[in-house]
Amino acid sequence: MRIEEEAQRRGLRIAWKPFLLGPLFRSLGMENSPFVLQKEKGAYVWHDMVRQCRKYGLQWVQPNLFPRLGVLLRVALLGAEKPWIGAFCRQVMLLNFAFDKDINQPDSIGRILDELGLPAAEILKQAQAEPAKASLRQQTEEARGRGIFGAPTFFARGEMFWGNNRMDDALLLASEQRV
Amino acid sequence: MRIEEEAQRRGLRIAWKPFLLGPLFRSLGMENSPFVLQKEKGAYVWHDMVRQCRKYGLQWVQPNLFPRLGVLLRVALLGAEKPWIGAFCRQVMLLNFAFDKDINQPDSIGRILDELGLPAAEILKQAQAEPAKASLRQQTEEARGRGIFGAPTFFARGEMFWGNNRMDDALLLASEQRV
Repeated sequence: MRIEEEAQRRGLRIAWKPFLLGPLFRSLGMENSPFVLQKEKGAYVWHDMVRQCRKYGLQWVQPNLFPRLGVLLRVALLGAEKPWIGAFCRQVMLLNFAFDKDINQPDSIGRILDELGLPAAEILKQAQAEPAKASLRQQTEEARGRGIFGAPTFFARGEMFWGNNRMDDALLLASEQRV
Repeated sequence: MRIEEEAQRRGLRIAWKPFLLGPLFRSLGMENSPFVLQKEKGAYVWHDMVRQCRKYGLQWVQPNLFPRLGVLLRVALLGAEKPWIGAFCRQVMLLNFAFDKDINQPDSIGRILDELGLPAAEILKQAQAEPAKASLRQQTEEARGRGIFGAPTFFARGEMFWGNNRMDDALLLASEQRV
Protein backbone atom coordinates (compact mmCIF):
# COMPACT_ATOMS: atom_id res chain seq x y z
CA MET A 1 0.00 0.00 0.00
CA ARG A 2 2.86 2.40 0.63
CA ILE A 3 5.83 1.39 -1.51
CA GLU A 4 5.02 3.48 -4.56
CA GLU A 5 4.66 6.71 -2.62
CA GLU A 6 7.81 6.00 -0.59
CA ALA A 7 9.81 5.17 -3.70
CA GLN A 8 8.62 8.28 -5.53
CA ARG A 9 9.60 10.44 -2.57
CA ARG A 10 13.15 9.08 -2.89
CA GLY A 11 13.28 9.19 -6.67
CA LEU A 12 13.53 5.39 -6.92
CA ARG A 13 12.15 3.19 -9.68
CA ILE A 14 10.34 -0.01 -8.67
CA ALA A 15 10.64 -3.13 -10.83
CA TRP A 16 7.49 -5.07 -9.92
CA LYS A 17 7.80 -8.89 -9.98
CA PRO A 18 4.44 -10.54 -9.19
CA PHE A 19 4.60 -14.22 -8.23
CA LEU A 20 2.36 -16.78 -6.53
CA LEU A 21 2.91 -17.68 -2.89
CA GLY A 22 1.01 -20.98 -3.00
CA PRO A 23 3.39 -22.88 -5.34
CA LEU A 24 6.36 -21.23 -3.59
CA PHE A 25 5.20 -22.44 -0.16
CA ARG A 26 4.57 -25.92 -1.57
CA SER A 27 8.06 -26.08 -3.04
CA LEU A 28 9.36 -25.22 0.46
CA GLY A 29 7.42 -28.15 1.91
CA MET A 30 4.44 -26.16 3.26
CA GLU A 31 0.93 -27.12 2.21
CA ASN A 32 -0.48 -23.72 3.12
CA SER A 33 0.46 -20.28 4.44
CA PRO A 34 2.59 -20.45 7.61
CA PHE A 35 -0.11 -18.27 9.20
CA VAL A 36 -2.55 -21.14 8.70
CA LEU A 37 -0.13 -23.98 9.47
CA GLN A 38 1.14 -22.45 12.69
CA LYS A 39 -1.98 -21.50 14.52
CA GLU A 40 -0.37 -19.56 17.40
CA LYS A 41 1.59 -17.40 14.99
CA GLY A 42 -1.49 -17.00 12.80
CA ALA A 43 -3.60 -15.79 15.73
CA TYR A 44 -0.91 -13.25 16.59
CA VAL A 45 -0.49 -12.05 13.02
CA TRP A 46 -4.20 -11.34 12.58
CA HIS A 47 -4.25 -9.36 15.78
CA ASP A 48 -1.06 -7.50 14.90
CA MET A 49 -2.46 -6.71 11.44
CA VAL A 50 -5.29 -4.72 13.03
CA ARG A 51 -2.73 -2.66 14.94
CA GLN A 52 -0.45 -2.19 11.93
CA CYS A 53 -3.31 -1.04 9.71
CA ARG A 54 -4.40 1.41 12.40
CA LYS A 55 -0.81 2.70 12.57
CA TYR A 56 -0.63 3.24 8.80
CA GLY A 57 -4.19 4.59 8.55
CA LEU A 58 -5.37 1.69 6.38
CA GLN A 59 -8.81 0.21 6.23
CA TRP A 60 -8.83 -3.41 7.39
CA VAL A 61 -11.16 -6.35 7.80
CA GLN A 62 -10.06 -9.94 8.43
CA PRO A 63 -10.99 -11.89 5.29
CA ASN A 64 -13.40 -14.77 5.91
CA LEU A 65 -11.27 -16.83 3.52
CA PHE A 66 -7.47 -16.92 3.74
CA PRO A 67 -5.39 -17.27 1.71
CA ARG A 68 -7.44 -16.39 -1.34
CA LEU A 69 -6.52 -17.67 -4.77
CA GLY A 70 -4.98 -14.87 -6.75
CA VAL A 71 -4.11 -16.25 -10.16
CA LEU A 72 -5.57 -13.13 -11.68
CA LEU A 73 -2.27 -11.73 -10.50
CA ARG A 74 -1.43 -12.56 -14.10
CA VAL A 75 -3.01 -9.16 -14.68
CA ALA A 76 -0.37 -7.65 -12.42
CA LEU A 77 2.27 -9.47 -14.42
CA LEU A 78 0.91 -7.96 -17.64
CA GLY A 79 0.95 -4.55 -16.01
CA ALA A 80 4.31 -4.89 -14.28
CA GLU A 81 5.94 -2.25 -16.44
CA LYS A 82 2.84 -0.10 -16.87
CA PRO A 83 2.15 3.10 -14.92
CA TRP A 84 -1.05 1.58 -13.45
CA ILE A 85 0.64 -1.35 -11.66
CA GLY A 86 0.83 0.28 -8.21
CA ALA A 87 -2.76 1.52 -8.21
CA PHE A 88 -3.98 -1.87 -9.50
CA CYS A 89 -2.17 -3.78 -6.74
CA ARG A 90 -3.50 -1.47 -4.05
CA GLN A 91 -7.07 -1.94 -5.30
CA VAL A 92 -6.69 -5.75 -5.27
CA MET A 93 -5.29 -5.61 -1.71
CA LEU A 94 -8.26 -3.46 -0.63
CA LEU A 95 -10.69 -5.85 -2.32
CA ASN A 96 -9.27 -8.71 -0.24
CA PHE A 97 -8.31 -7.08 3.03
CA ALA A 98 -10.64 -4.09 3.34
CA PHE A 99 -13.78 -5.38 1.58
CA ASP A 100 -13.32 -9.14 2.09
CA LYS A 101 -14.16 -10.01 -1.51
CA ASP A 102 -12.98 -12.75 -3.83
CA ILE A 103 -9.95 -11.54 -5.82
CA ASN A 104 -10.04 -14.35 -8.34
CA GLN A 105 -13.17 -13.30 -10.27
CA PRO A 106 -12.70 -11.71 -13.69
CA ASP A 107 -15.71 -9.47 -12.88
CA SER A 108 -14.22 -7.82 -9.82
CA ILE A 109 -10.73 -7.54 -11.34
CA GLY A 110 -12.35 -6.13 -14.49
CA ARG A 111 -14.13 -3.49 -12.42
CA ILE A 112 -10.79 -2.36 -10.98
CA LEU A 113 -9.30 -2.11 -14.47
CA ASP A 114 -12.36 -0.16 -15.66
CA GLU A 115 -12.02 2.29 -12.83
CA LEU A 116 -8.39 2.81 -13.78
CA GLY A 117 -9.59 3.69 -17.29
CA LEU A 118 -8.06 0.57 -18.85
CA PRO A 119 -9.40 -1.81 -21.55
CA ALA A 120 -10.56 -4.42 -19.02
CA ALA A 121 -11.91 -7.03 -21.46
CA GLU A 122 -8.73 -7.02 -23.50
CA ILE A 123 -6.42 -7.25 -20.49
CA LEU A 124 -8.48 -10.04 -18.89
CA LYS A 125 -8.43 -12.03 -22.12
CA GLN A 126 -4.67 -11.72 -22.32
CA ALA A 127 -4.34 -12.66 -18.62
CA GLN A 128 -6.31 -15.86 -19.18
CA ALA A 129 -4.26 -16.97 -22.16
CA GLU A 130 -1.46 -19.52 -21.96
CA PRO A 131 1.55 -17.18 -22.30
CA ALA A 132 0.50 -15.23 -19.19
CA LYS A 133 0.07 -18.45 -17.23
CA ALA A 134 3.49 -19.69 -18.29
CA SER A 135 5.02 -16.36 -17.49
CA LEU A 136 3.61 -16.30 -13.94
CA ARG A 137 4.83 -19.86 -13.36
CA GLN A 138 8.27 -18.85 -14.56
CA GLN A 139 8.38 -15.76 -12.40
CA THR A 140 7.36 -17.86 -9.38
CA GLU A 141 10.22 -20.27 -10.13
CA GLU A 142 12.61 -17.34 -10.38
CA ALA A 143 11.41 -16.10 -6.98
CA ARG A 144 12.11 -19.56 -5.58
CA GLY A 145 15.54 -19.54 -7.16
CA ARG A 146 16.44 -16.23 -5.55
CA GLY A 147 15.73 -17.62 -2.07
CA ILE A 148 12.39 -15.86 -1.60
CA PHE A 149 10.19 -17.52 1.04
CA GLY A 150 7.43 -14.95 1.55
CA ALA A 151 5.90 -11.70 0.36
CA PRO A 152 6.43 -8.85 0.07
CA THR A 153 10.13 -9.33 -0.66
CA PHE A 154 12.32 -6.50 -1.89
CA PHE A 155 15.70 -6.52 -3.59
CA ALA A 156 17.90 -3.44 -3.36
CA ARG A 157 21.38 -3.59 -4.89
CA GLY A 158 21.15 -7.39 -4.91
CA GLU A 159 20.31 -7.60 -1.21
CA MET A 160 17.08 -9.29 -0.14
CA PHE A 161 14.68 -7.74 2.38
CA TRP A 162 11.55 -9.48 3.60
CA GLY A 163 8.32 -7.89 4.75
CA ASN A 164 6.90 -4.48 5.48
CA ASN A 165 9.22 -4.45 8.52
CA ARG A 166 12.24 -4.21 6.24
CA MET A 167 10.87 -2.12 3.39
CA ASP A 168 12.36 1.05 4.78
CA ASP A 169 15.78 -0.60 5.10
CA ALA A 170 15.51 -1.68 1.44
CA LEU A 171 14.53 1.82 0.32
CA LEU A 172 17.36 3.32 2.33
CA LEU A 173 19.93 1.00 0.77
CA ALA A 174 18.55 1.70 -2.70
CA SER A 175 18.78 5.46 -2.05
CA GLU A 176 22.36 5.52 -0.77
CA GLN A 177 24.94 7.19 -2.96
CA ARG A 178 27.36 4.65 -4.32
CA VAL A 179 30.92 5.42 -3.28
CA MET B 1 20.18 -5.15 23.87
CA ARG B 2 18.10 -1.98 23.82
CA ILE B 3 14.91 -2.54 25.80
CA GLU B 4 16.18 -1.36 29.18
CA GLU B 5 17.45 1.97 27.87
CA GLU B 6 14.29 2.53 25.82
CA ALA B 7 12.05 1.71 28.79
CA GLN B 8 13.99 4.00 31.13
CA ARG B 9 13.70 6.84 28.66
CA ARG B 10 9.91 6.47 28.82
CA GLY B 11 9.72 5.88 32.58
CA LEU B 12 8.45 2.32 32.09
CA ARG B 13 9.10 -0.67 34.34
CA ILE B 14 10.02 -3.99 32.69
CA ALA B 15 8.81 -7.26 34.24
CA TRP B 16 11.34 -9.78 32.89
CA LYS B 17 10.01 -13.29 32.23
CA PRO B 18 12.80 -15.62 31.05
CA PHE B 19 11.67 -18.87 29.44
CA LEU B 20 13.16 -21.58 27.21
CA LEU B 21 12.49 -21.58 23.49
CA GLY B 22 13.42 -25.26 22.92
CA PRO B 23 10.54 -26.82 24.91
CA LEU B 24 8.19 -24.13 23.60
CA PHE B 25 9.06 -24.95 19.98
CA ARG B 26 8.67 -28.68 20.67
CA SER B 27 5.24 -28.15 22.19
CA LEU B 28 4.30 -26.32 18.95
CA GLY B 29 5.44 -29.34 16.92
CA MET B 30 8.87 -28.02 15.88
CA GLU B 31 11.95 -30.06 16.64
CA ASN B 32 14.25 -27.07 16.33
CA SER B 33 14.33 -23.34 15.74
CA PRO B 34 12.30 -22.31 12.65
CA PHE B 35 15.55 -20.69 11.44
CA VAL B 36 17.10 -24.16 11.30
CA LEU B 37 14.01 -26.04 10.06
CA GLN B 38 13.30 -23.63 7.23
CA LYS B 39 16.60 -23.24 5.53
CA GLU B 40 15.66 -20.41 3.12
CA LYS B 41 14.28 -18.31 5.95
CA GLY B 42 17.30 -19.18 8.09
CA ALA B 43 19.74 -18.06 5.40
CA TYR B 44 17.88 -14.77 5.10
CA VAL B 45 17.70 -14.20 8.85
CA TRP B 46 21.47 -14.62 9.31
CA HIS B 47 22.13 -12.15 6.55
CA ASP B 48 19.55 -9.70 7.84
CA MET B 49 21.02 -10.00 11.35
CA VAL B 50 24.31 -8.58 10.08
CA ARG B 51 22.45 -5.57 8.68
CA GLN B 52 20.32 -5.09 11.79
CA CYS B 53 23.33 -5.19 14.10
CA ARG B 54 25.10 -2.66 11.91
CA LYS B 55 22.00 -0.45 12.07
CA TYR B 56 21.88 -0.60 15.87
CA GLY B 57 25.66 -0.34 16.27
CA LEU B 58 25.95 -3.81 17.82
CA GLN B 59 28.87 -6.17 17.59
CA TRP B 60 27.91 -9.37 15.76
CA VAL B 61 29.36 -12.69 14.73
CA GLN B 62 27.37 -15.65 13.46
CA PRO B 63 27.65 -18.35 16.15
CA ASN B 64 29.20 -21.60 14.93
CA LEU B 65 26.52 -23.41 16.95
CA PHE B 66 22.85 -22.43 16.82
CA PRO B 67 20.70 -22.58 18.78
CA ARG B 68 22.84 -22.88 21.91
CA LEU B 69 21.51 -24.50 25.07
CA GLY B 70 20.75 -21.78 27.54
CA VAL B 71 19.46 -23.52 30.66
CA LEU B 72 21.68 -21.24 32.69
CA LEU B 73 18.91 -18.80 31.91
CA ARG B 74 17.78 -20.05 35.29
CA VAL B 75 20.21 -17.39 36.48
CA ALA B 76 18.14 -14.82 34.63
CA LEU B 77 15.06 -16.19 36.32
CA LEU B 78 16.69 -15.74 39.74
CA GLY B 79 17.64 -12.22 38.77
CA ALA B 80 14.34 -11.30 37.10
CA GLU B 81 13.45 -8.78 39.79
CA LYS B 82 17.00 -7.66 40.53
CA PRO B 83 18.57 -4.47 39.19
CA TRP B 84 21.27 -6.49 37.37
CA ILE B 85 18.90 -8.46 35.11
CA GLY B 86 19.25 -6.21 32.06
CA ALA B 87 23.03 -6.02 32.18
CA PHE B 88 23.26 -9.79 32.75
CA CYS B 89 21.06 -10.59 29.75
CA ARG B 90 23.04 -8.25 27.49
CA GLN B 91 26.31 -9.90 28.52
CA VAL B 92 24.92 -13.39 27.78
CA MET B 93 23.70 -12.18 24.38
CA LEU B 94 27.15 -10.76 23.63
CA LEU B 95 28.81 -14.00 24.75
CA ASN B 96 26.71 -15.92 22.23
CA PHE B 97 26.32 -13.48 19.34
CA ALA B 98 29.39 -11.25 19.55
CA PHE B 99 32.00 -13.67 20.94
CA ASP B 100 30.55 -16.99 19.73
CA LYS B 101 31.03 -18.70 23.09
CA ASP B 102 29.09 -21.41 24.86
CA ILE B 103 26.46 -19.83 27.13
CA ASN B 104 25.70 -22.99 29.07
CA GLN B 105 28.96 -23.21 31.05
CA PRO B 106 28.86 -22.23 34.73
CA ASP B 107 32.37 -20.79 34.27
CA SER B 108 31.47 -18.23 31.64
CA ILE B 109 28.16 -17.32 33.28
CA GLY B 110 30.03 -17.02 36.60
CA ARG B 111 32.51 -14.62 35.01
CA ILE B 112 29.63 -12.37 33.91
CA LEU B 113 28.18 -12.40 37.42
CA ASP B 114 31.63 -11.63 38.88
CA GLU B 115 32.04 -8.68 36.58
CA LEU B 116 28.67 -7.39 37.69
CA GLY B 117 29.97 -7.54 41.29
CA LEU B 118 27.62 -10.36 42.26
CA PRO B 119 28.20 -13.50 44.42
CA ALA B 120 28.67 -15.80 41.43
CA ALA B 121 29.20 -19.08 43.28
CA GLU B 122 26.11 -18.61 45.37
CA ILE B 123 23.89 -17.62 42.46
CA LEU B 124 25.13 -20.50 40.29
CA LYS B 125 24.49 -22.98 43.08
CA GLN B 126 20.94 -21.71 43.44
CA ALA B 127 20.45 -21.79 39.66
CA GLN B 128 21.46 -25.46 39.52
CA ALA B 129 19.12 -26.51 42.31
CA GLU B 130 15.73 -28.13 41.69
CA PRO B 131 13.45 -25.15 42.56
CA ALA B 132 15.09 -22.99 39.86
CA LYS B 133 14.66 -25.78 37.29
CA ALA B 134 11.01 -26.24 38.21
CA SER B 135 10.47 -22.52 38.11
CA LEU B 136 11.92 -22.16 34.59
CA ARG B 137 9.80 -25.09 33.39
CA GLN B 138 6.72 -23.44 34.87
CA GLN B 139 7.51 -20.08 33.32
CA THR B 140 8.00 -21.77 29.93
CA GLU B 141 4.58 -23.41 30.28
CA GLU B 142 3.08 -20.05 31.16
CA ALA B 143 4.65 -18.55 28.04
CA ARG B 144 3.06 -21.36 26.02
CA GLY B 145 -0.29 -20.71 27.69
CA ARG B 146 -0.19 -17.04 26.74
CA GLY B 147 0.19 -17.88 23.05
CA ILE B 148 3.90 -17.04 22.83
CA PHE B 149 5.63 -18.71 19.87
CA GLY B 150 9.02 -16.94 19.78
CA ALA B 151 11.33 -14.52 21.52
CA PRO B 152 11.58 -11.75 22.35
CA THR B 153 7.87 -11.32 23.08
CA PHE B 154 6.51 -8.30 24.89
CA PHE B 155 3.21 -7.71 26.65
CA ALA B 156 1.94 -4.16 27.05
CA ARG B 157 -1.52 -3.67 28.63
CA GLY B 158 -2.31 -7.29 27.91
CA GLU B 159 -1.46 -7.02 24.21
CA MET B 160 1.21 -9.28 22.75
CA PHE B 161 4.01 -8.00 20.51
CA TRP B 162 6.59 -10.26 18.90
CA GLY B 163 10.15 -9.44 17.99
CA ASN B 164 12.45 -6.46 17.88
CA ASN B 165 10.31 -5.23 14.96
CA ARG B 166 7.40 -4.64 17.33
CA MET B 167 9.23 -3.56 20.48
CA ASP B 168 8.68 0.12 19.76
CA ASP B 169 4.95 -0.46 19.23
CA ALA B 170 4.82 -2.24 22.60
CA LEU B 171 6.70 0.58 24.34
CA LEU B 172 4.42 3.14 22.73
CA LEU B 173 1.28 1.37 23.88
CA ALA B 174 2.72 1.00 27.39
CA SER B 175 3.54 4.73 27.46
CA GLU B 176 0.14 5.99 26.33
CA GLN B 177 -1.95 7.87 28.84
CA ARG B 178 -5.00 5.89 29.78
CA VAL B 179 -8.19 7.74 28.96
